Order: sequence, then C-alpha cells, then structure tokens
Amino acid sequence: MTDFRGVFPILPTPFLPDESVDIGSFRTMIERMVGLCVDGVTILGVLGEANRLTDRERTDLVDAAVQTADGRIPVVVGTSHSGTRAATELAASAKRQGADAVMVTPHKEPVPSERRIFDHFRAVAAATDLPIVLQDHPGSTEVHMSVELVLDMVKEIPTIACIKQEALPSPPRIAALKAGLSRDVPILTGLGALYGGFELAAGADGFMTGFAFPEILKAMVAASVDDAWRIYAKHLPLIVFENQPGVAIRKEIFRRRGLIAHSVVRAPGTGISPTAALQLDDLLERTFGARNLCERLTP
Amino acid sequence: MTDFRGVFPILPTPFLPDESVDIGSFRTMIERMVGLCVDGVTILGVLGEANRLTDRERTDLVDAAVQTADGRIPVVVGTSHSGTRAATELAASAKRQGADAVMVTPHKEPVPSERRIFDHFRAVAAATDLPIVLQDHPGSTEVHMSVELVLDMVKEIPTIACIKQEALPSPPRIAALKAGLSRDVPILTGLGALYGGFELAAGADGFMTGFAFPEILKAMVAASVDDAWRIYAKHLPLIVFENQPGVAIRKEIFRRRGLIAHSVVRAPGTGISPTAALQLDDLLERTFGARNLCERLTP
Amino acid sequence: MTDFRGVFPILPTPFLPDESVDIGSFRTMIERMVGLCVDGVTILGVLGEANRLTDRERTDLVDAAVQTADGRIPVVVGTSHSGTRAATELAASAKRQGADAVMVTPHKEPVPSERRIFDHFRAVAAATDLPIVLQDHPGSTEVHMSVELVLDMVKEIPTIACIKQEALPSPPRIAALKAGLSRDVPILTGLGALYGGFELAAGADGFMTGFAFPEILKAMVAASVDDAWRIYAKHLPLIVFENQPGVAIRKEIFRRRGLIAHSVVRAPGTGISPTAALQLDDLLERTFGARNLCERLTP
Amino acid sequence: MTDFRGVFPILPTPFLPDESVDIGSFRTMIERMVGLCVDGVTILGVLGEANRLTDRERTDLVDAAVQTADGRIPVVVGTSHSGTRAATELAASAKRQGADAVMVTPHKEPVPSERRIFDHFRAVAAATDLPIVLQDHPGSTEVHMSVELVLDMVKEIPTIACIKQEALPSPPRIAALKAGLSRDVPILTGLGALYGGFELAAGADGFMTGFAFPEILKAMVAASVDDAWRIYAKHLPLIVFENQPGVAIRKEIFRRRGLIAHSVVRAPGTGISPTAALQLDDLLERTFGARNLCERLTP
Repeated sequence: MTDFRGVFPILPTPFLPDESVDIGSFRTMIERMVGLCVDGVTILGVLGEANRLTDRERTDLVDAAVQTADGRIPVVVGTSHSGTRAATELAASAKRQGADAVMVTPHKEPVPSERRIFDHFRAVAAATDLPIVLQDHPGSTEVHMSVELVLDMVKEIPTIACIKQEALPSPPRIAALKAGLSRDVPILTGLGALYGGFELAAGADGFMTGFAFPEILKAMVAASVDDAWRIYAKHLPLIVFENQPGVAIRKEIFRRRGLIAHSVVRAPGTGISPTAALQLDDLLERTFGARNLCERLTP
Repeated sequence: MTDFRGVFPILPTPFLPDESVDIGSFRTMIERMVGLCVDGVTILGVLGEANRLTDRERTDLVDAAVQTADGRIPVVVGTSHSGTRAATELAASAKRQGADAVMVTPHKEPVPSERRIFDHFRAVAAATDLPIVLQDHPGSTEVHMSVELVLDMVKEIPTIACIKQEALPSPPRIAALKAGLSRDVPILTGLGALYGGFELAAGADGFMTGFAFPEILKAMVAASVDDAWRIYAKHLPLIVFENQPGVAIRKEIFRRRGLIAHSVVRAPGTGISPTAALQLDDLLERTFGARNLCERLTP
Repeated sequence: MTDFRGVFPILPTPFLPDESVDIGSFRTMIERMVGLCVDGVTILGVLGEANRLTDRERTDLVDAAVQTADGRIPVVVGTSHSGTRAATELAASAKRQGADAVMVTPHKEPVPSERRIFDHFRAVAAATDLPIVLQDHPGSTEVHMSVELVLDMVKEIPTIACIKQEALPSPPRIAALKAGLSRDVPILTGLGALYGGFELAAGADGFMTGFAFPEILKAMVAASVDDAWRIYAKHLPLIVFENQPGVAIRKEIFRRRGLIAHSVVRAPGTGISPTAALQLDDLLERTFGARNLCERLTP
Repeated sequence: MTDFRGVFPILPTPFLPDESVDIGSFRTMIERMVGLCVDGVTILGVLGEANRLTDRERTDLVDAAVQTADGRIPVVVGTSHSGTRAATELAASAKRQGADAVMVTPHKEPVPSERRIFDHFRAVAAATDLPIVLQDHPGSTEVHMSVELVLDMVKEIPTIACIKQEALPSPPRIAALKAGLSRDVPILTGLGALYGGFELAAGADGFMTGFAFPEILKAMVAASVDDAWRIYAKHLPLIVFENQPGVAIRKEIFRRRGLIAHSVVRAPGTGISPTAALQLDDLLERTFGARNLCERLTP
C-alpha cells in the first residue's frame, strides 16, 4: 500500500492544438515522472483540467497512466464528482483500472453540512478498498471543512490514507491536524508549494501539487531543515510565478521541459498570455541560468 | 424546427431506491408528458440532477427520451459542461441521438469574461446545427450575463432559438430583451413559475421549468390575461411551496402523480423532509381537494 | 420585556429625492405603524438599506424611532456590524437611545467558524442587557449557521429573545428549532412572508419582515388555521411580487400607502423599473380593487 | 498634487488590548513612515481593518494621520462604502480633514453592473476634487471590473490619479492597462507585493500595499532591473509568509519593529497563531540575521 510521504506531482492533461487529449504526451510525461523518482503521480486534479473532460477521456487517461507507470510508481486518480453515486462509480472504476489510490474532495452544496460531507466520504470508502486521499482545498471547492470534521473522518474511515491539506492558513492547520490525528496519516501540502517551506516546518510529510519541478520539491523533502529552506527560498520566485491563476503557465513549463508537446489549455480556460510568456523566459534564465529546460533538468 | 412557445417541462431524473437510474419511470414520465400535450420536454437540467449523473447515464437518458417521445413532442437536452470542448461533444452527441434541441448555460470562471461566454456559445453552435436554448439562470450558474451580451449572441448566432430567462428581476428583463431582440426569438421563463404571472404579462412566450403541473402552465399560456391571472393566483401556494430549495418536493409530487415510481434524490442532495411531506399533503388537499393526484389530474 | 410573538414589520428608510434621510417620513411611518397595532417595528435591517447609511444617520434614525414610538410599541434596532467591537458599541448605543431590542446577524469571514460566531453573539450580549433578535438570513449574510449552533447560543445566552429564522428551507428548520429549543424563544419568520403560510403551520410565532402590508400578516397570525391559509393564498401574488430582489418595490408601496413621501433608493441600489411600476398598478387593482391604497387601507 | 509613483504603505490600525483604537501608536507609526521616506501612506484599507471601525473612529484616525504627517508625506484615505452617498460623504469629509487623496473600491451588488460602478465613481468624483485612487482588488471586493471599464473611467473622470491594480493575473493586466491608458495615470500594485517583481517588470509604477517593510519595496523601485529582482527574490519568503490570510502576521511585524505597541486584531478577526509566531521568529532570523527588528531596521 502506498505510503503517502514524499512528492506526488499533480499532472496536467496535455492536449493537441485541436484540444483533443494528447495521450502520447501523457504517457511521455508519466514515464519522465518515473525517471524523476517521484513517489507517485496524481492525475485528474484541478491542474489536470478534470472539470473540462468527458468521462470517456478520464477513463482513457487512467488507463494510460496505469499502463505507463506499470507498478513502478503509484498512480493516484482524482475521482471527485458533484454526485456521491458518481463519485463512488469513479472510485470503483479507478480500482478496476488498476489505480493505486483515489483523491476526493467534498462538493459545494447550497446548504453546507458537515454531516453530508462525512456521508459522501463514507460512501466512497464503502465503494472501494483503494486508499483515499482526502483533499481539502477550499480555494477550488468553496467548501470549508473544520479541523474536527477532518479528524473525525480520519478516525472513522480507515482507508483515508492521506490528507492533502490546502486550507489556509496552512502551517497552523497542519500543526492542529498533527496534534489531533488518531493515527499516523501523512499530510501532504499543495497550493503549488507556495507555503511549502513553512508547511514542511509545521510537520507536512511532503507535497502533492502541480509545481512543474517536482525534483526541487523532492530535494526539499530530503534535505536538512536549513537546506530545505535554502532550496525553497531559491526557487520561490518560480513557485510564486507559477502560482498565478490558471493552468497555462505550468503547462507551458511542462512543454518547455519536453514533458508534453503542447501547452494548449481547454476553453473557456486560456493559454499563456504574451506577458507571462516573456516573463517566464526571464525567470527561467534567472533561476536556472538557461532556458533550455529540457537539457538542463533531465535527471 | 421546434417553435419555442408554450410549455416545455423540465423533467426530473427518476432513481430507484439504490439511486440507480430508473429508465422505466423515465419512459413512463415522457409518455405521460406526451399525453398532457406539452409543447416539448427538457431533460438533464438542474431538476434532472444532471450534475449527479455520469456521462453514460446521460446518454442512456437521452436515448430513452428520444425513443419514447418518438417525434410526437420535441426533446430538449441540457448539454451544459464546464469545458467548452465537452459541451460541444455533448451537443453533437445529442444531435446524433436524435434530440431536437440543446439547452446550454455559461460556466462560472475565476475571472468573468463576457467575451469568453460568447466564444463558448459560438463553439457549441459550430458543433451542431441543433437549435440552442440559451439558459440564463444566475441562481444556479452564478454567472451574470448582461442583457447586451444576450442580445449580441442572439444576433450573431442564428441557431439560438430560445432564451430561457431566469435572471432576476425577470419581468423588466423580459421587457428589455423583447425591446432589444434583433429577431423573433421566443423567451421562456423558468424559476418554477414563481413569477410566471408577471413574466407572461411582461411578454414571455411560455414556460420551460420544473413545476410539477405543466398542464396548469399550459392553461395559463392559453388563457386570456384575466384568466391567466386567476390560474396563476389560484396555484401560487403550490408554486411557492415547490420553489423551496432542492428537487425533493417536485420529485415527490411527480411520484404522487404516478409519473415516477420513487422520489429518491441522489446524495449529497436530500429527500423530502417529514415536515415538507406533511405540508404537501395539506397543500394538495387545499389546492385540488384530493390527495390522489394520479386520479385527479390524469388528463 | 418585549414578547416576540406577532408581527414586527421591518421598515424601510425613507429618503428625499437627493437621497438624504427623510426623518419626517420616517416619523410618519412609525406613527402609522402604531396605528396599525403591530407588535413592534424593526429598523435598520436590509430593507432599511442599513448598509448604505453612515453611523450618524443610523443614530438619528434610532432617536426618531424611539421618540415617535414613545413606548407604545417596541423598537427593534438592527445593529449588525462586520466588527464585533463596533457591533457591541452599536448595541450599547441603541440601549442608551432607548431601543427595546437589537437584531444581530453574524458576519461572513474568509474562514467560517461557528465558534467565532458564538463569540460574536456572546460579546454583544455582554455589552447590553437588551433582548437580542438572532437573525439567521444566509440569503443576505452568506453565513450558514447549523441548527445546533443556534440552539447552543439560545441555551447559553439568556438575552437571545427571538430567532428571526430565514434559512432555507424554513418550515423544516422551524420544526427542528422548535423541537430542540431549551427554553421558549419565539421564532419569527421573514423572507417577505414568501413561505409564511407554511412557516406558521410549522410553528412560527409570527413575522418580522418587510412585507408592506403588516396588517395582512397580523390577520394571518390571529386567524384560525384555515383562515390564515385563505389570507395567505389571497395575498400571495403581492407577496411574490414584492419578493423580487431589491427594496424598490416595497418602498414604492410604502409611498403609495402614504407611509413615506418618496420611494427613492440609495445608489448603487436602483429605484423601481417602469415594468415593475406598471405591474404594481395592475396587481394592486387585482388584489384590493383600488389603487388608492392610502384610502383603502388606512386602519 | 500627489504623484502616485513610488511606495505608499497601507497601514494597519493599532489597537490596545481592549481593542480600542491606539491613537498613540498610530501617530508613532505615521511618524516612522515619514522617517522611512515613503512616498505617502494609505490608511483605512483592508489591512487597516476599516470594516471593523465605526465612522467616529475613522474620523479620528484621519485627523491623527493628517496632523502627524503634517504635509511631509501625502495621506491617502480609504473611503469605500457600500452606499454611494456615504462614499461621497466620506470622501468630502476626508477632504475637509486635510487628506491628500481617497482610495475607492466598487461594492458588490446582487446583480453586477459596470454602468453602476461607473456611476459610483462619478458620484465620488463629483463630491470632492481630491485625487482618487481607483482600487481594483477582486480578492476582497468580489467585484470584477473589465480592463475596458477601468480605462473608460480613467478617461472620463480626470481626478482618478492612480490605479491600485490587484486583479489577477496582474502582470498581463498591468501591461493591458499601460497599453490602453488615455493619459499617464500611475499604476501601483498591491497584494502584499507577492508578484511585485513581475509587476514592476510589466510596468507598474510602484507599490501601495501592506507589506511590513516598505523600505524594501522602496529599494526595489529605485533599483536597476537586476537589482530589483535580487531584492525581490531575497525577501520573497517574507512576502509569502506575510501573504497568509488575515492581518495578524503583519501587525505582529509592525509590533516587533516598534511601529505599534500591540498586535491586537479586532474580532471576529484573529491574532497571530502560535505556529505563525514561531515561524516568524525563524523567518526573521533567516532573512535579517536578527530578531530585534527595531534595532536592525530603524532607518
């Protein structure tokens, strides 16, 4: 069973210029992630533009990821859905397709109810024995779960194997979760690693996020406190730049790294702006001393 | 081509007690709508719990509706999607399956942009020659389109065949649309007919909504101004009661009318509360003098 | 001490054509409310455009209301504020000015916290011994309080003297509150009386709302179940029409009734639309058989 | 007349332990800002907890700021209000009190309307000849203004003297504004300087933001491109840390710098968490090599 410590990049979904799924690039990217020795990959999250995909496309992407990973690294599949039954079906389907875990968020309802969020996770857990990554990201879900709710769900639902903690402010929340957890469930942080240095210091066990340089995050996780800080500080301009809304900048970096063929974003999302493209040139030069990321960063 | 005047009920999606789709009830309900002589039916809207369905289930429901309607009444299919490409695929699929029109809403994006909403509708229109019902329902979409945007889209996109106007306050908005339209596009109102009497008076051409008694709306549309008013006023308690959030009350009325077998709502939505069930008994008695709606209301 | 049963109209704040406060009209309106034998009046709520007023104007309005009411009917003052300290000051000031009760809502914060809502009400209660009307209106506050939180606050804070229940769906919520209350705290309903018939049936003790005909609500509260229903049903078109967003329609009815001199709404709010003004003529005629409301309805 | 280029810190409002306004600290802080040679100060913004203040407190703070600044640096006063008339009164009052400019945001209304936002700014401009800082910060206002609207308002309203640009993503937006401006209106950036390096590169004229070290921002603005980058990169961990939601961390830094006596935050806001306090110790040590900021940073 997957140990959710370390670095689990959230992967984008590559598209061809006509916005159809580029399965070839997707496989290449997974293969490259294996090469980068990440601890696992997560597909079909926000960066994966999961909300722009059809179910058929999702299924194909899961198949491609599982086949390419081929047991070398675990594949976590985002299976969130606005309906509980569909969420359970997506989770069961992920299991059948060979996924190693599912990532699940609560869905915003007109009248918020922690009880119903609990029921939602219970239902998913009943539908599959796959480990569940409980994602808490109010920034995208608009759902605010109390620390108590998260702790209670961890206590009652044994297959919750990881908390992807992205509620703000995150360091004190990580500390509160760590203090309250009834069993040793890893806490991974996200938010593009924006607060990564502070989150590790507060007890986070690693990263599950879309920052386009997972090897940098791996180095942080493996390093001493002081070295982790230095790595974080050195790359923070890049982290901040990537953190601008939308997925275009990250996809463009993935493209420049040779991980995907095109940085196409599905409408109504938008591609990288001319301003951002120019600033990215400059930023990469300043950060790495070279724009040829493919050459520079291939492990 | 469908003339969008009259009454186009939005239909619920019936489920069995285990929350699986009850295709049998769905066919029965469509057949009964034909019997009620409605001007068409709309499936896979908010009342249809479209956001709780998998794509496979959506496809099956479209097939069942088209087959059952069998050309006797037009079938409008909700094909809204958070991604433009998926929305075009759903529209093209609806066409292939024999649907008569598609209903499309814009999707809320982090940075609102009327230009991108326009692009979204352009893309859908380019993907199918089916008539498009442009749904404007900020209450569910959280997207606010200006009257100018709606008018511009109607002007440029010839396949927009109907405006489902549910932005508030609706009567002045209907008047503004009527005054500004460059061609004769029908305006249907929704919102469970809550403001129906005032909307008809302001120029609406009928209803596309989930109120569980479409024959009452038909009577309103067909009536003189004074009679329409009387029908509206008489049934307003029922309209208001149904207008409470959620789909449970409507599904329960559909069940009592014998249109569907179960009033099951998919989680995390909730079924009818005991309080509402009791009040519904009383309300139906007061409105129709009998609780056996099946007997009383079968046309 | 005020018994919060019966009808407590929420009053608008009248403005002169230059949008300055029209204290003369305000006094007239209070006087007329005394004449209508309402059980109290509530000022500085949403209908009172409280969020468009300066503190100075608020103070003047409280003074005018207290002086005019002169002990004949209780004056409830909306003292909600986004800051707890300011809320306590407004409550203390209301007390000094002679108000009979304060009405308080929670304020939306970036991270929702029921504990901090509780602290907010505790602080207000510590600052004044005035009775507190706990307003629960997610429609305007975007704050969703659980039934448990409301019950706990009632239990711990003895000066909470009334729950103004406007969370949806309201009848089952009223039933749940009634079932759970640790002491006999009246529940008043609002929402313009939209669901008034159903809310009374579920156990509500009356109305605290802006519907422009409080005498109709009084008649409902005093009537037998069947008569209450008839009164509700008869006036529901008016209730629904008034329920359109904004305060313009209500202010216009207040004006036509001779309660205020002008129906001016403070910007960026908007006055009554031409469509609504025309429909109001027709609606009043249909409801009362006369447009001269002043003559027709003066008690 | 103020030239809005350079660095205009947004100042917090200091409170005593009982949450009353600490005017003494406020004066000290203003005095210290003069000493830091900032280009002006802005009070009563979000960091100033303006939404927790009474009008009386606001007036006192404006008086104290104007008196202490005493013409040595311009004082910009946040005068946003949910009502247009109150906003004009606040602006006129700021003028009478000797403020040098007002900062104004649009207010979120149930139905968004760019026309009414325009009217709001027109009304403020008509009420005072003070320069207006047009603040565009959807993160706090939930109002999204199009670039076209901002450009149109600048074109028509001559007293708009500065755009405080905080809509995301900001660098391309700054570029678009710069390209479209009909006259030379400075664009200042905010957001705690999170994207400051990228915003300056895109053409921003400086900062109007709450980052607790304005001298660092001044150094950035004065530096060559490469040096500005180095300064930005060096302090980015601090910028990011401060950027966590809430005002507590910034107030604590102000306190440690000796600028204010207490870091008290008004409820329902919260003070600094133990986790954040500890991390701040470490961060300041890493950034400046000393925790005694007062000694270290006094100019």
